[in-house]
Amino acid sequence: SRSINLAVIPGDGIGQEVVAEGLKVLSAVLPQDVKLETKEFDFGARRYHTTGETLTDADLDALKKHDAILLGAIGDPSVPSGVLERGFLLKLRFAFDHHVNLRPSKLLPGVETPLKGEPEIDFVVVREGTEGPYTGNGGTIRKGTEHEVATEVSVNTAFGVERVVRDAFARAQARPRKKLALIHKNNVLTFAGHLWTNVFNKVAEEFPEVTTEYMHVDAATIYLVTQPQRFDVIVTDNLFGDIITDLAAAVSGGIGVAASGNINPSGDFPSMFEPVHGSAPDIAGQGKADPTATVLSVALLLRHLGHESEAARIEDAVSADLAERTGKPARSTTEIGDALAVRVAG
Amino acid sequence: SRSINLAVIPGDGIGQEVVAEGLKVLSAVLPQDVKLETKEFDFGARRYHTTGETLTDADLDALKKHDAILLGAIGDPSVPSGVLERGFLLKLRFAFDHHVNLRPSKLLPGVETPLKGEPEIDFVVVREGTEGPYTGNGGTIRKGTEHEVATEVSVNTAFGVERVVRDAFARAQARPRKKLALIHKNNVLTFAGHLWTNVFNKVAEEFPEVTTEYMHVDAATIYLVTQPQRFDVIVTDNLFGDIITDLAAAVSGGIGVAASGNINPSGDFPSMFEPVHGSAPDIAGQGKADPTATVLSVALLLRHLGHESEAARIEDAVSADLAERTGKPARSTTEIGDALAVRVAG
Ligand SMILES: CC(C)[C@H](C(=O)O)[C@@H](O)C(=O)O
Ligand SMILES: CC(C)[C@H](C(=O)O)[C@@H](O)C(=O)O
Repeated sequence: SRSINLAVIPGDGIGQEVVAEGLKVLSAVLPQDVKLETKEFDFGARRYHTTGETLTDADLDALKKHDAILLGAIGDPSVPSGVLERGFLLKLRFAFDHHVNLRPSKLLPGVETPLKGEPEIDFVVVREGTEGPYTGNGGTIRKGTEHEVATEVSVNTAFGVERVVRDAFARAQARPRKKLALIHKNNVLTFAGHLWTNVFNKVAEEFPEVTTEYMHVDAATIYLVTQPQRFDVIVTDNLFGDIITDLAAAVSGGIGVAASGNINPSGDFPSMFEPVHGSAPDIAGQGKADPTATVLSVALLLRHLGHESEAARIEDAVSADLAERTGKPARSTTEIGDALAVRVAG
Repeated sequence: SRSINLAVIPGDGIGQEVVAEGLKVLSAVLPQDVKLETKEFDFGARRYHTTGETLTDADLDALKKHDAILLGAIGDPSVPSGVLERGFLLKLRFAFDHHVNLRPSKLLPGVETPLKGEPEIDFVVVREGTEGPYTGNGGTIRKGTEHEVATEVSVNTAFGVERVVRDAFARAQARPRKKLALIHKNNVLTFAGHLWTNVFNKVAEEFPEVTTEYMHVDAATIYLVTQPQRFDVIVTDNLFGDIITDLAAAVSGGIGVAASGNINPSGDFPSMFEPVHGSAPDIAGQGKADPTATVLSVALLLRHLGHESEAARIEDAVSADLAERTGKPARSTTEIGDALAVRVAG
């Protein structure tokens, strides 16, 4: 489309700073005939402290009117754990049915990995985003007593598993190596595990060119640090995906460069793009945050909206920028954003 | 006690080979006046294929009569995923109330880590062993149809959490650094998360010398590869413990040297000690398996039974053996066992 109507949620901590650079690069990369309209939303800790609200029905209605959402980070130590996560981040993912949580891991030239041997890392995790133990099912009885019992229910449906597995197969099919790994723990979580495994094997029949493997989540963490090059596309459940994508980010250059998309492929609701890192309150407001993960999230956003060449231009600019970092003094958030804006425009 | 009545479960794959070396070292380290009696049990894939049984009530009665259990590995590709895990390994942990799953991670001199910078790694994970999503609660409806729903229920009780948290605090208190980290995901799994966090904070009051921290499981995987030296003792739930201990093993020398104890501190039932690695059917019967993890599990077993000096002798022997490996040709399972037996005897 020749216009982008973008909802922008800077959020808390470094969110403000990195989103400003993301928007700077976005404006720079778009051709003149693509009209960019942005509307900023003040969600997060400040709003919560002022109004007690995290994300209202009216907020969702307002967000819904946009083509996509760019988010910086939500979370602050002044807010009790869980309030903004369940009340904002997860509420948004569930309300807009963001069932494909896309998290690419690519070790770019010039980027340091904690792993010896500089392995070639280039894979994508397709994390389910609307089921598993993230649904909020469960409860507590006899709270605060020595007889307290707390449960968490992981909910998995054939409908929910199949659509994300199919998405992952399609992505694997489109990549040169055409490999897809299912990560679960089907030897212990046998109910959910059988559902995931059976659906995976069924959908695999439609993609005969894709090479598949199954791996337990515990074994996967070993491979992620000893043989990360073996992975191409990974599909996994919401919680396992949460865990392994942080590990994947750590081995492929750190969360400073890890981007993600919370995608609703149907287009019924806007998809949301955000860096994997959090609000990092310890360095907020100091111009120290690396906006690269946000800029890469903008690339995912553009690709999702069909602006493939602009997405690729951003990714190339980031690669070039990272490749030249070694040995140079650290730059501020704005300096990195400026440099990337120049590169994508040039 | 001056006698050890040991149940031995070699199990599948390399289990047979590594357990033989574990017993060799055990016999060599024990003083003459400690009588060692062993009884071998034929559990695992062969028994399952022959009789359909994994672990019967009569088996549990027989095992119960022992002071401790040494296990090699259980699992074979010929058995459907979950059958031996749920039917034997987990059944045993639950039947004998093995609620403290102890998994030390120590990077020993001469041992290769996949991490740059050769960080100092020396921590212990205390993984809860009888609750969480491992209870088998959950189920499936409309199995095999497009309307299938599968659930897994994580069950957490104040009783179960408090006893393992208390055990972890006591272990932290006894170590020089006196640090304890709680790992959970209390911002998403808020029911279980609040229980864990509240119990942890309450028990902390009894251990004022122990420095505590809380970490989300996803963030913990990052620290395990970027700053593993920060950890001293970790306490966590059954599933998170499963995942992070494989990662911990990977960064601290691999599962070839990772030992574990499934401990019932009350002594009402025998505790069980086993290497973290599995049955590795691909290298079984070739004399290639490294028995070190099993030998270190024997050390945990001896410490549990009060034979501290023998446990330490085994650990010293393993350290010395590992330190001399670099640049030498690979040895067979038996050769490594022989070398360790000589060292502990000498
Ligand atoms: C903040 C939290 C709710 C979130 C998650 O668990 O999904 C985060 O860890 C992530 O990975 O996006
Ligand atoms: C084999 C499996 C049941 C087991 C577990 O998940 O606990 C294993 O992974 C372990 O860590 O001991």
